[in-house]
Amino acid sequence: MNGKKSDNFVIHGDICYSLDQNTLRCVEGGYLVCKDGKSQGVYPSLPDWYMNLPLLDHSDRLILPGLVDLHMHAPQFAFRGLGMDLELLEWLEAYTFPEESKYRNLGYARNAYAAVARDLVNGPNTRVCMYATVHLPATRLLMDMMETTGLVCMVGKVNMDRNNPPYLCESSAALSAEHTHMWLAASAGRYKNVSAILTPRFIPVCSDELMGMLQKLQKEFNVPLQSHLCESRAEVEWVRKLCPNSKNYADAYDSFGLFGGDVPTIMAHCVWPEEDEIALIREKNVYIAHCPQSNANLTSGVAPVRRLLNNDVQIGLGSDVAGGCHTSIFRAMADAIQTSKLRHLLVDRSEAPLSIAEAFYLGTLGGGSFFGNVGSFAAGYEFDAIIIDDTSIYAPFPLTVEERLARVMHFSDDRHIQEKYVRGKCVKC
Amino acid sequence: MNGKKSDNFVIHGDICYSLDQNTLRCVEGGYLVCKDGKSQGVYPSLPDWYMNLPLLDHSDRLILPGLVDLHMHAPQFAFRGLGMDLELLEWLEAYTFPEESKYRNLGYARNAYAAVARDLVNGPNTRVCMYATVHLPATRLLMDMMETTGLVCMVGKVNMDRNNPPYLCESSAALSAEHTHMWLAASAGRYKNVSAILTPRFIPVCSDELMGMLQKLQKEFNVPLQSHLCESRAEVEWVRKLCPNSKNYADAYDSFGLFGGDVPTIMAHCVWPEEDEIALIREKNVYIAHCPQSNANLTSGVAPVRRLLNNDVQIGLGSDVAGGCHTSIFRAMADAIQTSKLRHLLVDRSEAPLSIAEAFYLGTLGGGSFFGNVGSFAAGYEFDAIIIDDTSIYAPFPLTVEERLARVMHFSDDRHIQEKYVRGKCVKC
Repeated sequence: MNGKKSDNFVIHGDICYSLDQNTLRCVEGGYLVCKDGKSQGVYPSLPDWYMNLPLLDHSDRLILPGLVDLHMHAPQFAFRGLGMDLELLEWLEAYTFPEESKYRNLGYARNAYAAVARDLVNGPNTRVCMYATVHLPATRLLMDMMETTGLVCMVGKVNMDRNNPPYLCESSAALSAEHTHMWLAASAGRYKNVSAILTPRFIPVCSDELMGMLQKLQKEFNVPLQSHLCESRAEVEWVRKLCPNSKNYADAYDSFGLFGGDVPTIMAHCVWPEEDEIALIREKNVYIAHCPQSNANLTSGVAPVRRLLNNDVQIGLGSDVAGGCHTSIFRAMADAIQTSKLRHLLVDRSEAPLSIAEAFYLGTLGGGSFFGNVGSFAAGYEFDAIIIDDTSIYAPFPLTVEERLARVMHFSDDRHIQEKYVRGKCVKC
Repeated sequence: MNGKKSDNFVIHGDICYSLDQNTLRCVEGGYLVCKDGKSQGVYPSLPDWYMNLPLLDHSDRLILPGLVDLHMHAPQFAFRGLGMDLELLEWLEAYTFPEESKYRNLGYARNAYAAVARDLVNGPNTRVCMYATVHLPATRLLMDMMETTGLVCMVGKVNMDRNNPPYLCESSAALSAEHTHMWLAASAGRYKNVSAILTPRFIPVCSDELMGMLQKLQKEFNVPLQSHLCESRAEVEWVRKLCPNSKNYADAYDSFGLFGGDVPTIMAHCVWPEEDEIALIREKNVYIAHCPQSNANLTSGVAPVRRLLNNDVQIGLGSDVAGGCHTSIFRAMADAIQTSKLRHLLVDRSEAPLSIAEAFYLGTLGGGSFFGNVGSFAAGYEFDAIIIDDTSIYAPFPLTVEERLARVMHFSDDRHIQEKYVRGKCVKC
């Protein structure tokens, strides 16, 4: 019997997952049980009552939960690595907006999104929150294409009706809202793995009128929301000028009822939060997508992840392609650790650097919890798993599972991802 | 006729190399001529007098000078990615010294160095300055093995006779010097591609007596020298205590006559130099190996590369494996740019970040000049070249050669290195 085609099976290998922010559970030669797309837990030896399930023998392979990318821009994949000599607002004008405008052409979008889908299937991520563009047809196309990959994705049609070039700007708040309504109505119930997420790009490009309309749509369709918060100092300053009545950037979203609370919400970046904002983020249970590489590439800074964690803020990792060049959340883990060390050294010695266990938590369970019971192998969690063949990474002495994880985090690539499961289905075999 | 087996040939493709620190010369569909292991220059169309040479058609491939790694530790390759939660001096004690002690065993060394050699042949580097260990037989073995790769390497038997664990420490200055003498005598004239470089590890582990003896050996054998300078603040403080009569760390080397001048010298890191030291580095024409990833991983800091460049210091890049996890100098280029942005933002706004052209210069011509006429395709330079197939990196619109270079820098891996030439010989075909 071919276990890969069954919904119920057991994987045997060297298993590792986060119990909490600080604690890895590693079981060498353990058994991970999948039934009906959910984990039944990890066992050092296989209990009798699972003996009849097909056994997939991945001895000596590393078995990890699938990684979660809480923030990426699908139309920016095409220009990864370009314009890396610019800061955020310049880069948006010079590269991002001109490129995104091309997605009014469905043929262009189809080719570009096919490249995104191929890359994501080959890599270690199993769940992704992504931005499309303002264009309704291309956004639907992206959702259709991601659905066929088997990855679980939240996809947002972008809203932007001010302060951006006419070739990309939606011509009015009403039109932007109308397209968003059509998109939400058409998306509801259409997919198994893909769902809609409301995506006002960020305060500077969304009028007050539009934000009001989006709040109504959010309530009508009961969808989550993603946006950007406190990425660069210039952007924070801009928001201060645009919203003189708001206490700060977070408060500007909150004043429209679009900052967490009943609305499951991801804000990307949070590099420059004020104390008040951190309190509001926590109070409203807003998720922060920490995007360390992008924040370095665009000279935005290093987010105060330690301070956010100490304040019980929910945090996941984001590739932020194309501010970041790499879709793999393994790279985001390594970058999160590296930049946390530079922050510790150069900004605030009281903020301890992130550990391997913490970075792994952020990229699995930390971000995964935005999707529900995701990012762990504890019983009842959705069965997202990656099988990693790290035998090609030379080691002249025996390594612990945690040491192997550290190496995979620092220098694996898609060749090491041997198989990948999402909700119990093999999506890369 | 098979051009790869000839010493004289022409490569046709999209060629790019540095004219100087700020200037790339990119010739799309150009011709790069090799005669007797040297470049005869790059031509937009092939001159008549080269028409009779074999033409290697690499249309649409990127042709770049081979990359130069000015600083790596061959015995540390085995534990890349481990212990990345420690700072420099702790990491040396916990990981580096115990691992290096294993190289007294030649069988262990042979396996581990074979993995290093494989990795280096597959990647983009063509020249490497590397540290071995204190062990004479294993150092000779490493030299023998690197010779067979065809890469050009300078290899150093490490000297260390104080302040390190007894299992690794050389038992006296005299013994350390005696082994070094034997090694230098046996290496002289033995290799075509490999040569010896004197390698006192760093001031804290080398007694005054030993440094004096090494200075004599340096004069006797006329060999270059590599060591470490101002890597972390704790180390700088330690040197200050060990050398109360020296003005600073650089001056401590200089007081033994081992800081440049007549001695071609590489100092790795230089993260925390004083103004006086920068002046001495320049005066003595000492090369700095900038190792951005290692300096982040070990919480050492970000070297003031812009300030060093403004002071006309000669700089190349170093992987510093295993402080850095990646041997590819493309990665070092991308890391140098990223960390220069964080330094610009967090340390000193007056130090402008590095550009793509500058990072590429550092990893080719900047470090290459330590080897002579290396790191460029200008006529007369040694013919080190890499042929890069970047067609698998999705691009929905035409890119300039410089844009393709930026992408290769940011996310290529060994799969993209299609062929590699060193001194006109193909070492990866």
